[in-house]
Amino acid sequence: MNLEPLFKSLKQGQNRLAGQNRREKDAALRSVIAALDAGRRDILAANEKDVSEARRKGMKEALIDRLSLNDSRINATLEGIEALIRQSDPVNNVKSYWTLPNGLFIEEITVPLGVAAVIYESRPNVTVDVFSLAYKAGCGVLLRGSSSALESNRVLVRAIKQGLETGGGVPNAVALADSGRREEIQEILLARGWIDAVIPRGGKDLIRQVVENARVPVIETGAGNCHIYADASADIGKALDIIENAKVQKPGACNAVETLLIHYGIVSEIMPLLAERFAGRVELRCDPRSKQAIAAPPAELILKDAEESDWETEFLDYILAVKTVNSLEEAIGHIRRYGTGHSEAILTGDIGSAETFGRMVDAACVYTNASTRFTDGGEFGFGAELGISTQKFHARGPMGVNALTSIKYRITGQGQIRP
Amino acid sequence: MNLEPLFKSLKQGQNRLAGQNRREKDAALRSVIAALDAGRRDILAANEKDVSEARRKGMKEALIDRLSLNDSRINATLEGIEALIRQSDPVNNVKSYWTLPNGLFIEEITVPLGVAAVIYESRPNVTVDVFSLAYKAGCGVLLRGSSSALESNRVLVRAIKQGLETGGGVPNAVALADSGRREEIQEILLARGWIDAVIPRGGKDLIRQVVENARVPVIETGAGNCHIYADASADIGKALDIIENAKVQKPGACNAVETLLIHYGIVSEIMPLLAERFAGRVELRCDPRSKQAIAAPPAELILKDAEESDWETEFLDYILAVKTVNSLEEAIGHIRRYGTGHSEAILTGDIGSAETFGRMVDAACVYTNASTRFTDGGEFGFGAELGISTQKFHARGPMGVNALTSIKYRITGQGQIRP
Repeated sequence: MNLEPLFKSLKQGQNRLAGQNRREKDAALRSVIAALDAGRRDILAANEKDVSEARRKGMKEALIDRLSLNDSRINATLEGIEALIRQSDPVNNVKSYWTLPNGLFIEEITVPLGVAAVIYESRPNVTVDVFSLAYKAGCGVLLRGSSSALESNRVLVRAIKQGLETGGGVPNAVALADSGRREEIQEILLARGWIDAVIPRGGKDLIRQVVENARVPVIETGAGNCHIYADASADIGKALDIIENAKVQKPGACNAVETLLIHYGIVSEIMPLLAERFAGRVELRCDPRSKQAIAAPPAELILKDAEESDWETEFLDYILAVKTVNSLEEAIGHIRRYGTGHSEAILTGDIGSAETFGRMVDAACVYTNASTRFTDGGEFGFGAELGISTQKFHARGPMGVNALTSIKYRITGQGQIRP
Repeated sequence: MNLEPLFKSLKQGQNRLAGQNRREKDAALRSVIAALDAGRRDILAANEKDVSEARRKGMKEALIDRLSLNDSRINATLEGIEALIRQSDPVNNVKSYWTLPNGLFIEEITVPLGVAAVIYESRPNVTVDVFSLAYKAGCGVLLRGSSSALESNRVLVRAIKQGLETGGGVPNAVALADSGRREEIQEILLARGWIDAVIPRGGKDLIRQVVENARVPVIETGAGNCHIYADASADIGKALDIIENAKVQKPGACNAVETLLIHYGIVSEIMPLLAERFAGRVELRCDPRSKQAIAAPPAELILKDAEESDWETEFLDYILAVKTVNSLEEAIGHIRRYGTGHSEAILTGDIGSAETFGRMVDAACVYTNASTRFTDGGEFGFGAELGISTQKFHARGPMGVNALTSIKYRITGQGQIRP
């Protein structure tokens, strides 16, 4: 295995880092901010190389934008580290404690998860975000970015390591897997005993590859086929604002709404207004009742008949599927069938409907009267985020530093033996 | 897939169970106690069949004992359910909550993990323990016991389902995979979308099979190569009692001690006393210094030279490896190298050593001045246990109902949209 020396070095680094207290970790992070700040020119120059190479290869402008760094993006990243420094230490906290009848005192204490591997796509600021979250949690981290961002990531990781060095930190708690070989990913996925969790951040194909091949635990960050259900008692004005926001504010985001479910009692009221708002902006794929309810479609509206496949599709685009339902239960049933457990919302004035929806819908984030677009570590106040977990195992929803912790039990006795 | 109808039925059952409150779940569990109590004769008769079949096939008596049920074992199991009924509901608890600057109110709420599959060996009381933990957590559970316990498990699960039926519970939240085919396990391991976690309880081979083949998340319950480190300042009398207890009280248990590490400063004091205690009972495999320290070995003592392989071995037998170390750091280094992250103990009078050991040893349970034998859900006060997790992901250490929960975020707004 080619990566074994890297794994070994990371594990040693993590062991040392686990012994550092909050002051030491924060001082090292502060020094990383300084090093990244001082290295701006090199970082931007390396990024420029990546960007022109990507352009030369014909990368789409939307992806070029994700790949690009500039001063304000670097500033935002550094502010993310600042915010993380202000957060309390996620490890060495006592989560619970109790005394047994025999006098044994048990404490459940948060500890670093160990070494995490994060496999991600083009955005180079993820490199810094993920490193800083892992470091704060006392974890080693193996970064495996896209080959298109290789120059940027190399310079970023070099600056991070240098900052750790001068700040009294542990430089070998972070490493970049930078061979560019695809087999590198496979090696990471099989590294039982070295890697405690692998987190794929990217498209469906990457996630499938990871899940099917990993022998180390995986945190899936994935698809969001998100729904908004407009209940009979919804405030129509607010509903329109929320639906519009959830659809168009960033259609390519995993927390954007893809299907709107409408109670039949308000479908004739809401659809003409929605058609007006979305004319020329969002294509509607409607079931017969919601289509009919539009009555006089605006000229610019793209209006199609919904097909079965539309209910299953994460469009990530200016497209909204619309379905009329007869009841709250039908809405919940639809979400249970087609949802991906990401973000689901009910718009309602009825406290009972909100309660039932909140209880019966099995998703990471369940909203009442708000846009699904808030499912985000930054919005939740977690600082940077590792991604949004769509699994129920270990971590769920937006993941901040806590997703990189585990627990240990510390048991203190005075000579107790088991009878 | 042959098991798909079973998966589907379990998922439907779990969906229904998730909607039940504590009173409903507890009433159903109480009815299960009554059904198992009323069914004793059938249960014991079925178990008798399993036992005589196993004897006919030449099963060892130790395993026959694990397979055997009797009235007192049934009583203990029913008392386990009683204890679980007394416990508060592990789901629908608010773990944390906060309000965002924009007024969104976020609650982190515990929810059932979903459907768990437990693959286990001969003990039929595990069937009842695991079912009751899962039910209390609102989870569906697929039980895959040993074929040697098939008759017992069939009658037990029939009684459980009947109890759920009469008690207003959800009978299809539990199922037994009872084809006896080995491919059944493989089907369970690949059941993504149906099974939320698989928990293997058994020997190394089973665990390896599960880890290597599973596409659903796994909670490993596994090997315990446990250490006791007797520090220079240990109370010798208490140390001997703890070492003896951790070794001989149940040598086949995963929390029994396998290697004793002794600070060189007390090795000449402790070894002769240990040799006396263990003569005729426990074989010692010593490094040169600890062997020499015995000076005059009792006639009945089995004393061997330790080999490298002894440090790695989970003996599960009346054998103890002994090594002299020069420092606390050397002891921690040895544990880091050979430990399996299960249970590790320090015996010391020094508060600094206890603190360093507790912080630096990365294991599910870290003891100060107590026997490692306490690593157990029952001893910890969790009621029955699902097993002891030796991984750091999702659940660690003795697992009670909480290991079968996840969280969801419930977000309540008044029309908030993302700017």
